[in-house]
Amino acid sequence: MFGESHGPALGVVVDGCPPQVPFGLEDLQQLMERRRPGQSPLTSDRNEVDEVEILSGIFEGETTGMPVAMMVRNRDAQSSAYDALRDTVRPGHADLAYYQKYGCRDHRGGGRSSGRETVARVMAGALAMQVLIRRGIHIESKICEIGGESDPDRFEATILHAKEEHDSVGGILEVSATGCPPGLGSPVAEKLDAEIAHAMLSIGAVKGVEIGSGFAAARMRGSAHNDPITSGGYQSNHAGGILGGITTGAPVVVRIAVKPTPSIAQPQQTVTLDLEDTIVTVQGRHDSCIVPRIGVVAESMLALVIADALCEQDVVLASRLR
Amino acid sequence: MFGESHGPALGVVVDGCPPQVPFGLEDLQQLMERRRPGQSPLTSDRNEVDEVEILSGIFEGETTGMPVAMMVRNRDAQSSAYDALRDTVRPGHADLAYYQKYGCRDHRGGGRSSGRETVARVMAGALAMQVLIRRGIHIESKICEIGGESDPDRFEATILHAKEEHDSVGGILEVSATGCPPGLGSPVAEKLDAEIAHAMLSIGAVKGVEIGSGFAAARMRGSAHNDPITSGGYQSNHAGGILGGITTGAPVVVRIAVKPTPSIAQPQQTVTLDLEDTIVTVQGRHDSCIVPRIGVVAESMLALVIADALCEQDVVLASRLR
Amino acid sequence: MFGESHGPALGVVVDGCPPQVPFGLEDLQQLMERRRPGQSPLTSDRNEVDEVEILSGIFEGETTGMPVAMMVRNRDAQSSAYDALRDTVRPGHADLAYYQKYGCRDHRGGGRSSGRETVARVMAGALAMQVLIRRGIHIESKICEIGGESDPDRFEATILHAKEEHDSVGGILEVSATGCPPGLGSPVAEKLDAEIAHAMLSIGAVKGVEIGSGFAAARMRGSAHNDPITSGGYQSNHAGGILGGITTGAPVVVRIAVKPTPSIAQPQQTVTLDLEDTIVTVQGRHDSCIVPRIGVVAESMLALVIADALCEQDVVLASRLR
Amino acid sequence: MFGESHGPALGVVVDGCPPQVPFGLEDLQQLMERRRPGQSPLTSDRNEVDEVEILSGIFEGETTGMPVAMMVRNRDAQSSAYDALRDTVRPGHADLAYYQKYGCRDHRGGGRSSGRETVARVMAGALAMQVLIRRGIHIESKICEIGGESDPDRFEATILHAKEEHDSVGGILEVSATGCPPGLGSPVAEKLDAEIAHAMLSIGAVKGVEIGSGFAAARMRGSAHNDPITSGGYQSNHAGGILGGITTGAPVVVRIAVKPTPSIAQPQQTVTLDLEDTIVTVQGRHDSCIVPRIGVVAESMLALVIADALCEQDVVLASRLR
Repeated sequence: MFGESHGPALGVVVDGCPPQVPFGLEDLQQLMERRRPGQSPLTSDRNEVDEVEILSGIFEGETTGMPVAMMVRNRDAQSSAYDALRDTVRPGHADLAYYQKYGCRDHRGGGRSSGRETVARVMAGALAMQVLIRRGIHIESKICEIGGESDPDRFEATILHAKEEHDSVGGILEVSATGCPPGLGSPVAEKLDAEIAHAMLSIGAVKGVEIGSGFAAARMRGSAHNDPITSGGYQSNHAGGILGGITTGAPVVVRIAVKPTPSIAQPQQTVTLDLEDTIVTVQGRHDSCIVPRIGVVAESMLALVIADALCEQDVVLASRLR
Repeated sequence: MFGESHGPALGVVVDGCPPQVPFGLEDLQQLMERRRPGQSPLTSDRNEVDEVEILSGIFEGETTGMPVAMMVRNRDAQSSAYDALRDTVRPGHADLAYYQKYGCRDHRGGGRSSGRETVARVMAGALAMQVLIRRGIHIESKICEIGGESDPDRFEATILHAKEEHDSVGGILEVSATGCPPGLGSPVAEKLDAEIAHAMLSIGAVKGVEIGSGFAAARMRGSAHNDPITSGGYQSNHAGGILGGITTGAPVVVRIAVKPTPSIAQPQQTVTLDLEDTIVTVQGRHDSCIVPRIGVVAESMLALVIADALCEQDVVLASRLR
Repeated sequence: MFGESHGPALGVVVDGCPPQVPFGLEDLQQLMERRRPGQSPLTSDRNEVDEVEILSGIFEGETTGMPVAMMVRNRDAQSSAYDALRDTVRPGHADLAYYQKYGCRDHRGGGRSSGRETVARVMAGALAMQVLIRRGIHIESKICEIGGESDPDRFEATILHAKEEHDSVGGILEVSATGCPPGLGSPVAEKLDAEIAHAMLSIGAVKGVEIGSGFAAARMRGSAHNDPITSGGYQSNHAGGILGGITTGAPVVVRIAVKPTPSIAQPQQTVTLDLEDTIVTVQGRHDSCIVPRIGVVAESMLALVIADALCEQDVVLASRLR
Repeated sequence: MFGESHGPALGVVVDGCPPQVPFGLEDLQQLMERRRPGQSPLTSDRNEVDEVEILSGIFEGETTGMPVAMMVRNRDAQSSAYDALRDTVRPGHADLAYYQKYGCRDHRGGGRSSGRETVARVMAGALAMQVLIRRGIHIESKICEIGGESDPDRFEATILHAKEEHDSVGGILEVSATGCPPGLGSPVAEKLDAEIAHAMLSIGAVKGVEIGSGFAAARMRGSAHNDPITSGGYQSNHAGGILGGITTGAPVVVRIAVKPTPSIAQPQQTVTLDLEDTIVTVQGRHDSCIVPRIGVVAESMLALVIADALCEQDVVLASRLR
């Protein structure tokens, strides 16, 4: 993955995709649309139609087994809006940490750390989903909570209320994969749930992840938590479809915690790059809540992890046939 | 890492450890002791003093830059206790998933999926901690909850109560690293929190992980969640010491959810390897709660992740000096 | 790296480049020019000015530590010239092997296996060379032989002679790096010479690689081959600057064997994709000898390997300072 | 892989081996025997029967899909013989380069850089060969030259002659794999020949590698070098079984150049660790020619590379079946 918020382009190169998978722009468009801002009063005003260009790896409508490169150009970038942030860091953002790490930074729109980098994830995820669909695996997500509210009827009001107060809210999303065969994943160091956790916490703003019963498991007895097994399958799914790092065949269920957007139009205490105290009020176009837009990103990441696991299990199955 | 619960030995090979780090058995012993079962009525009866043997990579008390291999032999293995499990799988364990994946399994004590594999993590972690200590970084853990109880005075009673009822409990642990310089970690795909999440969910029985405010962040406003920055440092630590995947210099704070031990001495509904219904009552020696023993394992995993990040940041710093 | 000969674009994403390295199109142009065909009667007629676009990772003339993506578009592609090859494979090329591997292929100009993929190597190499130059390391190459001739005055005549006879010739190149500090590389599995050999044989048409005295070493006595060491340095360089996988400080010297271009305008025995016998005469625009153009590609690969080794050694050095 | 010449043990952990591959000590013994020194006047006097211990990953005579760890202990180590080398480096060895890299070294018998590390390669290779045999692939090697002699009748005399003169000789080996299906390997960066070259040059003392016609290709015309293809297969094998990084189905043919053993019982000019001039005469037990013993090591490395490629191709084939 590559690209900065206000650089020429963002993109991704997907290595290792098997050949003969049908793939084209039409498979991308719907997913990209779900990620796109500027669609409703709830999201950022940066209204950029991301036109994906497929640069390689597709021939006559199918993958060839070669790397699939995809790219979107940045068009609606208003870099000058960020001039005030050249020497001042934003609380809740990685600005200061980046500068301390690298000794330099692209301050325009967060540079590489901008949420805009998620276009690359969605493009790659769209390809992974084509691999999964052919194997009968479906990925979906739903919002569990926004700003502490769990009633979907109140999600919009909660976001708008925060927005009016120049503030922001976070939430909880559930992402799941149905149709996974048993046997995906690896034992010990590379458990499938470890891979999923990595993928999810690599998304900016995600502060926690849980599989199946997750943190609730810590408060259950073993006799209640163990999923009884019968000839008809597992009788419950506290495991979230994964035991010992390997899929059971039950749906893979993942929940992630999304923090409130750090960019808020309120004065906040911060420092300059020289570590002198100052006040910043973040201007620009920001979502008061990114939870609705993160769903498709989280689905993409789950799709990528499971597609990888499918390929790895093909190796095991090929050996077992002999 | 390698080894099965009832095979000849378990071990680990640590590649990439820098040279001239003092390391010896004495640096291992205290950590190994904390992981060891059979020490109190609260833990498994398998009372095995794990004698570590350092096989390579240490010369005259220091690392040489070569791979450091460490091993413990299995001595107290009572394999025959597992004969009943040759054809029957245990609920809450990976038995069936492993068998469905590989078409075969080492049924003795869970084989590779046994919690005994964590000796390898602790051995490797002990070495990582030596790297960290020289840089002023300290790792520690504490138990936040056991079986839903958050009062430490009641932890032991909660476990014993579950044990009496042939049941088990889980809990929540907090692991933290203090003294980390700002700048550790990577942006986007390989965020430090993603690496930590991977490391934590690779530990068996861990069902969730959160960084800093974690799931609570999903219910906070941005104005409350953002950590104000002053010339004196961050004024709070909701971020848990990591922003945009990179350390801020504040303590790295991680919490993990541990599920109740699946091995319980109660009859449970399950199947044979041929997927025929049956009942299993798991015999053998098992912890009613592994939370007290998992602390040192989680510390080890955090130490390994941070030691890796330190090495990567050395590359960046070397470039910046020019 | 990504891209096909007749697809939309070819490109490369360089991960892990340290920050604050000055880099711009001007650092690329001269190297790209050396790789470019259509410059003389000796090379292919495909006269394509490759305009590089830097897509990410550079801000105000320097690397930021973020992935550096670079791309060139294909403009002068005459795909229809390859229609005859849709169902027929070319001897000496990977056409049949690709088809047998993937079950499909992009037949236009060799698709991914076209020598045109080397633009990506040169773009990445240009960046690596900027890293090396700052550390006093210089890479260069020279032609040792063409078509069996070792007299440079006869290189051009040898190529033109082969071209007149609708045939092609190969040759031998020497690539070297001066200024490498001692200590680059790794022992055993990841020796620096192993990495170099991998890099060189990843270039199409390269059939052999040797370090220092190479194959001649097999005919020398130990007493003659060992490079005597004095307080003033190594007194000879049969080792080619690498012992036990680690640089000695002497110049790193590598030679590669380049096979004759397989595309020749003569009738050759071959098969269709259905494995039926046929005759093919390869049309299109081809070099009669690619040796002159491969020099900059081999330099690029050596630069990438050494830049990686420099970064790895920075980790070791940082540890040793403590 | 891990271990030093005079440390407690050397070993290897093989990850990713598919399950249900029959494997036991009997599959190892013959190969280990071929690598072993002390068998004839031609080889080192270190007569150590390497007793392999399988530590994990095998259950009831078959692989389980878990990491397979194998180890041999060092028994016949005469460390005191190396006391003279604590402060003096040996020409032709990595002693000085290691010290300059790491700032420390295990001087006993070359430490990690000792040829004794090849026991780990042979153990791993033995497992890879079991994978290959089931798929009809066979690996073998032959000596092409020793000390410049290509007549096998004169190999022994050449070695003994060098030994009498307290000197050493090198040679050239050919390693080949027959029965490989077409389609193994990857295009561009990870070509199969690149992987093979890496594997071969990772063996100490190997200074060059060539595939098929190799360096001779540089002196051939394209019309002669291209292997004609017919419905009955390739009519020659100048390609050495690999085109564009992918197997053709013809035998994979690799040649390697082995330098003369650097340890010779003659006075040689060298330096101390403080870079002061001195003279060293290497004592200890050394082969005057390691070519006969390297064959099984090179076979092992080729087996490992091809076994990996088989697994990767299984992923592609699984996708193509859909």
